[in-house]
Amino acid sequence: MNIIDIITKKKNKYPLTEEEIKYVIEEFDRGNIKDYQMSALLMAIVLNDMTDEEVIYLTKYMVLSGTILDLKELDNVVDKHSTGGVGDKTTLIISPIVASCGCKVAKMSGRGLGYTGGTIDKLESIPGFRVDLTKEEFIEEIKNIGMAITSQTESVALADKKIYALRDVTGTTESIPLIASSIMSKKIALGSKNLVLDIKVGEGALVKNIDDARRLANLMIKIGKENNMKVICLLTNMDVPLGSNIGNSLEVLESINTLYYLPENNLTKLCIELSTHMVSLGLNISYEEARSKVLEALNTKRAYNKLLEFINYQNGDITKLPKSRSLYQITSDKEGYIVNLSSLELAKLSMHLGAGRKTKEDKIDPSAGIIINKGLNEKVNVGDTVLTLYTNKELPKIDSGALFKVEDYQNTSYNLIYETIK
Amino acid sequence: MNIIDIITKKKNKYPLTEEEIKYVIEEFDRGNIKDYQMSALLMAIVLNDMTDEEVIYLTKYMVLSGTILDLKELDNVVDKHSTGGVGDKTTLIISPIVASCGCKVAKMSGRGLGYTGGTIDKLESIPGFRVDLTKEEFIEEIKNIGMAITSQTESVALADKKIYALRDVTGTTESIPLIASSIMSKKIALGSKNLVLDIKVGEGALVKNIDDARRLANLMIKIGKENNMKVICLLTNMDVPLGSNIGNSLEVLESINTLYYLPENNLTKLCIELSTHMVSLGLNISYEEARSKVLEALNTKRAYNKLLEFINYQNGDITKLPKSRSLYQITSDKEGYIVNLSSLELAKLSMHLGAGRKTKEDKIDPSAGIIINKGLNEKVNVGDTVLTLYTNKELPKIDSGALFKVEDYQNTSYNLIYETIK
Repeated sequence: MNIIDIITKKKNKYPLTEEEIKYVIEEFDRGNIKDYQMSALLMAIVLNDMTDEEVIYLTKYMVLSGTILDLKELDNVVDKHSTGGVGDKTTLIISPIVASCGCKVAKMSGRGLGYTGGTIDKLESIPGFRVDLTKEEFIEEIKNIGMAITSQTESVALADKKIYALRDVTGTTESIPLIASSIMSKKIALGSKNLVLDIKVGEGALVKNIDDARRLANLMIKIGKENNMKVICLLTNMDVPLGSNIGNSLEVLESINTLYYLPENNLTKLCIELSTHMVSLGLNISYEEARSKVLEALNTKRAYNKLLEFINYQNGDITKLPKSRSLYQITSDKEGYIVNLSSLELAKLSMHLGAGRKTKEDKIDPSAGIIINKGLNEKVNVGDTVLTLYTNKELPKIDSGALFKVEDYQNTSYNLIYETIK
Repeated sequence: MNIIDIITKKKNKYPLTEEEIKYVIEEFDRGNIKDYQMSALLMAIVLNDMTDEEVIYLTKYMVLSGTILDLKELDNVVDKHSTGGVGDKTTLIISPIVASCGCKVAKMSGRGLGYTGGTIDKLESIPGFRVDLTKEEFIEEIKNIGMAITSQTESVALADKKIYALRDVTGTTESIPLIASSIMSKKIALGSKNLVLDIKVGEGALVKNIDDARRLANLMIKIGKENNMKVICLLTNMDVPLGSNIGNSLEVLESINTLYYLPENNLTKLCIELSTHMVSLGLNISYEEARSKVLEALNTKRAYNKLLEFINYQNGDITKLPKSRSLYQITSDKEGYIVNLSSLELAKLSMHLGAGRKTKEDKIDPSAGIIINKGLNEKVNVGDTVLTLYTNKELPKIDSGALFKVEDYQNTSYNLIYETIK
């Protein structure tokens, strides 16, 4: 077996065998297959696709390339994964909801690269918060309070880590087989048995249209089945930011406020929906039963208290959340309704303010970010503040017309959740 | 401009602009574009193709990536290039033919990688032969005797050299745009103004079918036109070996014998055809006039004497051609005609006998190779020697049924030259 023949086979549109996929992953891990050979194969996969069987084998050998976590000693464990959205602090909100409903949340999260921070970046913005739990501390915390979030250990699905880094710099990120195997290999290796997937759909997302999102959903459900994991997929809109805050400490703050005040917005709505599916899977109960449990946990403030308990357990002090030195307001110069609130443009601006990393070496400013004072379809008058920017840097040049528009009509076509696939 | 956007553009089937292609070649040369990025782009080009304009730009910037030879002080210069064939010693035969017709041959050739040696490997099998001419010696020799062959200087079309090495190990060799730009960039940089291309077609060749060969031919003619170079393409059969000898010193010997004895075989026929087109281009005369000049040079032994003069000029001593220690004969076990004489299988065997390199580091045995005693469609009796093997190694296991077959019918469908495209 040799890599040139395998690349040529995929180039010529033939499916690879299990043995060939095993060879590719193992020899790439050993350094016998070079980066330039892997990237040629990845491009051939992007353009010529893979069968479901190939993706199942690819996932299998990526799982086997790293350590595999055994969560057998925990029951009712549920997990959630999002394919990336702007202002997506759902993990911080739904974990305490489902934990306070009797599920267990064992979450290993990553740092962000690109426009916004990852869950770990958000938690690290809380002074004192520990994200470097040992495996024992991690399990112990879940047993004690029902949830724990720690940074992802280096050794899970090692091949995926190397392949993902290569995809990032070779224009090969947008591929359903590669996205599915990357996400699912990590989830399988981390021992998940119940998984709710939030697949973001839109121009700026990895998945551009509903058809691709459906295929990705069905493929991940199939991989789950092969690995004794129950998977539910929500296809959701990423064109509009979730909630009103973008930036690390700002999103921690919004998570706490959301659980306390339950504002009627897209963030709350999505968190209730995701939590309901998680509780339904984790406790093996109906959607309706799960939904009433979730609403009860919210209304009684059990979920809110769980979040505070969790932050406290991992040493975080929310009274000391950092604040940025400068604050700028972007106001409306006309009367009307906010439309075209662009999550992609807000995310780019947020990165320039200091909330995201352009390269892996960049340091995040935990206090930087944006508060959306007037959200989609809200009424504004001349001079009303639409956005508030927080930064410790020079303010970049801002084109407010790219961030939002004010018109005399509302956007009635916005749809948060396109569909749910089980 | 950045490479990920350019890869993504080609992945999405959009043509690249001249500026983008310039950027790719220049930044790859500088090391700012990495091998793994280039190989992803190459695979996207293989699968999504390039427009003729893109190939013309690609060729242009590959030419500009190295030194450019100026042959203005020489007139009637003609060149020939073959896309690779088994037992292809045509360069050694046609160069003295066309030089003795009044054309100039300024040839920089390469070493071979794979089943057979390259022209330089063949010449190096002659004891004393110098292939490391300085530019001044090279030009001087052409002025004095009408021809010179030296090894290719490292600095011509540098980007092509790096890209070719990458294509070789990433399954991206079979691509009309990449083959055309690779060949033509070297020819343009080497100052060729008249070029005859021998495009090999067949299962084992870079070009598998006549349609692809026609597109390649027309593309190279178009690139030639853009660069003030006249190009004629012959589409020829590579399923049957050219002539009777395979291996480096054995092919030198056959070249000398061919010019002396003019045996009636496919090698002589192809050399006369290629030479005629070269002389027609080089002297700007009709095909018919050129053909009678070529036949005269052969019949008067002027071409034969020119080859000896050339070998002598570059210090070679043909009386000392190396001989291998061992000689084995493969005989026929039945009576009939030789059919299915496989050039690919003979080439593989020849490499195992020592005549080719498996890796760049391998040393070639100049004396190793095969003589085909009974060629395609020749009559054999039981016990007749069909092949004679020369080697200094242990004889590998031989499956003579894969090398040739003896049947009671002849192969009447063999066609040496499919067509000529100008």
